[in-house]
Amino acid sequence: MNDMASSAAVQATTPVTNEEIFVGHEGGKLSVGARRPIADARELSIAYTPGVAKVSTAIAENASLAARYTWAHRLVVVVSDGTAVLGLGDIGASASLPVMEGKAVLFKMFGGLDSIPLVLDTTDVDEIVETLVRLRPSFGAVNLEDIAAPRCFELEDKLKEALDCPVMHDDQHGTAIVVLAALRGANMVLGRDITKERVVVSGAGAAGIACTKILQAAGVADVTVLDSKGIIHVGRPGLTPVKQDLAWSTNRSGLSGGLREALDGADVFLGLSGATIDETLLDTMADDAIVFALSNPDPEVHPDIAAKYAPIVATGRSDFPNQINNVLAFPGIFRGALDVGARAITDNMKLAAADAIASVAADELAVDKIVPTALDPRVAPEVAAAVAKAATADGVA
Amino acid sequence: MNDMASSAAVQATTPVTNEEIFVGHEGGKLSVGARRPIADARELSIAYTPGVAKVSTAIAENASLAARYTWAHRLVVVVSDGTAVLGLGDIGASASLPVMEGKAVLFKMFGGLDSIPLVLDTTDVDEIVETLVRLRPSFGAVNLEDIAAPRCFELEDKLKEALDCPVMHDDQHGTAIVVLAALRGANMVLGRDITKERVVVSGAGAAGIACTKILQAAGVADVTVLDSKGIIHVGRPGLTPVKQDLAWSTNRSGLSGGLREALDGADVFLGLSGATIDETLLDTMADDAIVFALSNPDPEVHPDIAAKYAPIVATGRSDFPNQINNVLAFPGIFRGALDVGARAITDNMKLAAADAIASVAADELAVDKIVPTALDPRVAPEVAAAVAKAATADGVA
Repeated sequence: MNDMASSAAVQATTPVTNEEIFVGHEGGKLSVGARRPIADARELSIAYTPGVAKVSTAIAENASLAARYTWAHRLVVVVSDGTAVLGLGDIGASASLPVMEGKAVLFKMFGGLDSIPLVLDTTDVDEIVETLVRLRPSFGAVNLEDIAAPRCFELEDKLKEALDCPVMHDDQHGTAIVVLAALRGANMVLGRDITKERVVVSGAGAAGIACTKILQAAGVADVTVLDSKGIIHVGRPGLTPVKQDLAWSTNRSGLSGGLREALDGADVFLGLSGATIDETLLDTMADDAIVFALSNPDPEVHPDIAAKYAPIVATGRSDFPNQINNVLAFPGIFRGALDVGARAITDNMKLAAADAIASVAADELAVDKIVPTALDPRVAPEVAAAVAKAATADGVA
Repeated sequence: MNDMASSAAVQATTPVTNEEIFVGHEGGKLSVGARRPIADARELSIAYTPGVAKVSTAIAENASLAARYTWAHRLVVVVSDGTAVLGLGDIGASASLPVMEGKAVLFKMFGGLDSIPLVLDTTDVDEIVETLVRLRPSFGAVNLEDIAAPRCFELEDKLKEALDCPVMHDDQHGTAIVVLAALRGANMVLGRDITKERVVVSGAGAAGIACTKILQAAGVADVTVLDSKGIIHVGRPGLTPVKQDLAWSTNRSGLSGGLREALDGADVFLGLSGATIDETLLDTMADDAIVFALSNPDPEVHPDIAAKYAPIVATGRSDFPNQINNVLAFPGIFRGALDVGARAITDNMKLAAADAIASVAADELAVDKIVPTALDPRVAPEVAAAVAKAATADGVA
């Protein structure tokens, strides 16, 4: 029905070569430096011995001074066990490190935050928790990354319990926040009310479940979730505990079957599955459908195909319009949380982040711009401010 | 006998104020940044998704590529449990962090190395080992710092066993290396042979024991060690296992008693005890004595007093000549070890480092310059080259 977006989208860029990529990662991507240079013996005696002894003594006498005189309270650790790296799966901690270094670069670039990758040679949830508890005085917040479901749920829950600082699994909540922001943007373009829509979520992994929960928190009453075996409903045997919860809280029409049954008359398709979808199914959706085909690098349906059936199409790819990119969320969320010394990241902070992302581009919204672009420098400060305010309102700061 | 050195030494500098110190530590001292800037979406697609997937895939297929395409193999973790911080004692991990941040600044400034502080909320040796084993894919070398004896010995031994990378407790070996370098320098000035000297080491803690061992490795046959109870000898009851070993390997004259008995006729006094020493004892030392009073901030004997009895006096203080400062050693040692991918730091690498430090200032040696100054930029590259060569010769690279 609407192919304006996709045809306008394919931008002419020189293809990136393998050589460019490997040169760009040579020696790693991060560097640690001094915030203030040491030029002479006098400055050395301030930054190190004997001067530093006064600072250490002050913190020993008043622990709260660590927030002011160390870097820990503005430092995010980017933690992974390498079990669900991008679309590559369980490739191990060492092979995940280039991704975590990239994440740290983005934290600095967009959030002005220092961060360090900590990749772990264990996949045991309790061991990861124990490790971070022991390192607690070293950092201010934990960004979990590329950890496979269902362990990622247990790990995040246990870490939130064990640590008095912001903890967020970005693959879950970063994605969910940007999806909600984009869905708000899409509905503003279409002049519709998000709470009245029927949303189909294809994929019940980390991102699918987090998206479902944030949509429900935002007031979307009718969400149907599918995993590889079809629609999740209370009558389906063999559901894991996480999916049993999902069965009870979603699918209010009591649907069963597969995508065909789920999409019939649906307003929104949210693909987070890695599977492909038959385009004829999109034709059964309601008028003015919204299709988010977010699998990477291959969307569930090519955006040019999807555009034949839906006026608004989004993907995770930078070479099409409406890119759903976590970088719109995580730098601002952690920045806002750390700026006010938040002890946690609450649902309201996540919702506030989504609203802030959507509102940045409110005046420029169009079918091919339902969210700001990934490099929009206005986003992170707006998100940070909204998150900080929500943290204070929620009493966690 | 010689007070030229000390009188020339007291340099006029504006005193450092408390305010300057605290301002200099505000917000912490470190910053993490990108080695290559990301200017646009194309560069983002190289440094992060989708480009980074190729790098992660390559490492997953060939683990050795991590050394080339991540920062881990040039990253030093500066690890402390905060139990022996400077002269402040057991002030805890958080209060130790300003020191560890300062150390990281020095690693960058002198060694061009990236490093991050990891301070631990546990003092259990096995837990610290376990934590670093789990984090192994994240870093390339371990600098242990400010960990109390005797746990520091056990911790270093177990870590060296558990990790296939350079591990060094700087308070032990960094100090020992610079002490040996300075003693070589002092003997060059005096035209004497280090192996023929009688050395008294006051203090059998981490630094005292490491200094004793490196002096023995350098061929000094006659070392006598004292702890707070006096001379360590085989007949003394109640010695810890570490001190029993020391009793057997030192004190070849079979001395017993205290500093009075030890110093009578000694060539070198090496103070690493925190205790003070009566100046009349220095008068009983051999002619042309060498006095290293290294306790900080208060030397065992004031250098101006010591200079009445010894032509060569060294301290740990920057406001007197002949400062014995670990910064002469650790940046170059780790740089050299990491440059050649060394799997350990051997005794020969430490001896090579000491020789390199001594040789840098060989042409400028004087009674008030037995080692290069802490800020001498020539030192770390020379040390790194010597250490790399020794690592290769020892077959650990």
